[in-house]
Amino acid sequence: MSFIATPLSMHFADALPLQGGASIRDYTLAYETYGTLNADRSNAVLVCHALNASHHVAGVYEGQPKSEGWWDNMIGPGKPVDTNCFFVIGINNLGSCFGSTGPMHTHPDTGEVYGADFPVVTVEDWVNAQARLLDRLGIRQLAAVLGGSLGGMQALSWTLQYPDRMRHAVVVASAPNLTAENIAFNEVARRAIVTDPDFHGGHFYRHGTVPKRGLRIARMIGHITYLSDDVMNEKFGRQLRQRIIEHSPLGSLGTPAAAPAGADLPAAAAPTMGAYRYSTQDIEFEIESYLRYQGDKFSDYFDANTYLLITRALDYFDPALAHGGNLTLALAQATAKFLLVSFTTDWRFSPARSREIVKALLDNRRDVSYAEIDAPHGHDAFLLDDPRYLHLMASYFDTIAQEVAA
Amino acid sequence: MSFIATPLSMHFADALPLQGGASIRDYTLAYETYGTLNADRSNAVLVCHALNASHHVAGVYEGQPKSEGWWDNMIGPGKPVDTNCFFVIGINNLGSCFGSTGPMHTHPDTGEVYGADFPVVTVEDWVNAQARLLDRLGIRQLAAVLGGSLGGMQALSWTLQYPDRMRHAVVVASAPNLTAENIAFNEVARRAIVTDPDFHGGHFYRHGTVPKRGLRIARMIGHITYLSDDVMNEKFGRQLRQRIIEHSPLGSLGTPAAAPAGADLPAAAAPTMGAYRYSTQDIEFEIESYLRYQGDKFSDYFDANTYLLITRALDYFDPALAHGGNLTLALAQATAKFLLVSFTTDWRFSPARSREIVKALLDNRRDVSYAEIDAPHGHDAFLLDDPRYLHLMASYFDTIAQEVAA
Repeated sequence: MSFIATPLSMHFADALPLQGGASIRDYTLAYETYGTLNADRSNAVLVCHALNASHHVAGVYEGQPKSEGWWDNMIGPGKPVDTNCFFVIGINNLGSCFGSTGPMHTHPDTGEVYGADFPVVTVEDWVNAQARLLDRLGIRQLAAVLGGSLGGMQALSWTLQYPDRMRHAVVVASAPNLTAENIAFNEVARRAIVTDPDFHGGHFYRHGTVPKRGLRIARMIGHITYLSDDVMNEKFGRQLRQRIIEHSPLGSLGTPAAAPAGADLPAAAAPTMGAYRYSTQDIEFEIESYLRYQGDKFSDYFDANTYLLITRALDYFDPALAHGGNLTLALAQATAKFLLVSFTTDWRFSPARSREIVKALLDNRRDVSYAEIDAPHGHDAFLLDDPRYLHLMASYFDTIAQEVAA
Repeated sequence: MSFIATPLSMHFADALPLQGGASIRDYTLAYETYGTLNADRSNAVLVCHALNASHHVAGVYEGQPKSEGWWDNMIGPGKPVDTNCFFVIGINNLGSCFGSTGPMHTHPDTGEVYGADFPVVTVEDWVNAQARLLDRLGIRQLAAVLGGSLGGMQALSWTLQYPDRMRHAVVVASAPNLTAENIAFNEVARRAIVTDPDFHGGHFYRHGTVPKRGLRIARMIGHITYLSDDVMNEKFGRQLRQRIIEHSPLGSLGTPAAAPAGADLPAAAAPTMGAYRYSTQDIEFEIESYLRYQGDKFSDYFDANTYLLITRALDYFDPALAHGGNLTLALAQATAKFLLVSFTTDWRFSPARSREIVKALLDNRRDVSYAEIDAPHGHDAFLLDDPRYLHLMASYFDTIAQEVAA
């Protein structure tokens, strides 16, 4: 049983200028905090979320025992990021669909729902919005910024945008930018959503529709890329579907109120020798059943415009771009100490991408630790209970705790 | 300028029993032949095609200089499979959409277009249909059966279904079955097609619609898996789209009347420092433009039901299934000599999958050669002009030619 978390929100009347040239005003950020801010306000840790996660990082909501935060195995009392020492803050990013202002909310200028008119937001914009919220909480310098995947990009961007406002950056299963293949997968997912007749150019709210077909396809593609080929073979293989199985949610990239990703994959399946049904449209293999279930579930709660916005933020992130593609030059302004972690079977954000960041930091003689964890689970590994990974994180945050206490 | 090819067709009145329990009668197979059958009918080579290819393997059609067959670099006079020595046969598989009977044709029992009622066909069914056509051509024993990808599965299946009717099997970039990840990609593509409102349960012909949205998504997913991450980065990287570029077709897996796959990828692009447009729906990166173009083109000519049928045939192929998953037992009945070829960067049908076949053959003390080509192009490499690959094939077919002449 985890501790009780309480969702909070903060309103911002002043316009936030955005990288794309637009600005957004009268917006709200949903957030949560765990632990206690110490007297000199030096023990704050910001946790940045990835594609479909939220500010609900850890703990459970009152009376909802299954509502664990998406990184509840990492953050809490006695956990690797120990909330007995740290004041941990989770913030739902602008444009998301879990409480912060997003495309489903009303544009203050027009009185209409934003829909497709919600401005494009970038990793840099999110970091600026997070910094404003920290201003209001009276936190000038963070002990650490921590994130995995897209969250790791935010942690990296923090070191460039606000180098003096943080001591440590912990960047897990991330990359200095997306590869062409990454962008390609994002684009296919976006096209599935945008070409769904129920999308209505992004203004589906006023039509009373939800582009569920597109969201399902997007989520299915995502799931394939979150898992390794090996773990898919181990968990599903070519097993035929014997009966309707209600998979519990996998929660890749941190679904709010979901168990840690992968924790509830079905047990390793013996090869099934049953006869084929010989159908092109019915489910034949377990992997199909699993993907359809994940797609259905996702389409019930995730906003289609948010999916476009967040995948675009991923595509656009590229701190080296303004430096002629030179990541070493780009990271010269970072002064934080770094921990980078990657996972051997992560083909979405491969170890080679983390090593690019490590190399650029070492070129700049920065203080950087790097661990490449030999884990079978692919990109999802960053959310799972690998003991070596959790011990490493605990050890690194212990060191930060000692710095903070000193 | 290649030689002139002539499309042929053959009608079969008798019912062909299918693995799924149904049968099909009064069907037509489109085919082509190149070269001359020798006096003792011993120099025939059957070429099996993959997902979206056809019987038009080599040569060009009269007056259509750009209509090269999908494996024109491999097959023809003086080519690795030299039609001065061999009588080469290409057959469009049942259920395909390039001339052989498929879902867009009329069911003889009902007088209605088959649509979704076209029976499920398997690799084994295709091999049986090919064998019948060879009977009619008077060819009892093939010098070789040759295929890449799904075509390689047919070549492998030939060695099990008709071991005494062939001397050599040449299995390129193939696998003994699909992995869970392979099936997953097929399933997402199928869901995109089936959930397109224009699909109408597979009976879209009578509605005068084409499920182009779904076909586009299916093709985009396919293209990502045909290319390696490296070649995508080299050819597209994060280059921004500067203008509308009309890519010529890539023709992965052998589009009829298309240039060899990959041959017309844009030249390696210098990183572009232009500003982002900040849009979630417009094209921003070159890779997006390329994928959308490929999707559009494919949706103009490929049949949606055929896509379902052929991906299902891929999913179902698994000769080890009837032997408790033991591939060595499954391949015990093969007597052909084998050449297997794989490509290092092919992550769709990785070298490890070819090595499974090699091992199972060696366990059975079969005559097997294996080459793992260090090629950067991913799965598409089997259609490209890698000199080591083409020399290897030429050398192997030279040996066959000597056997035939002896």
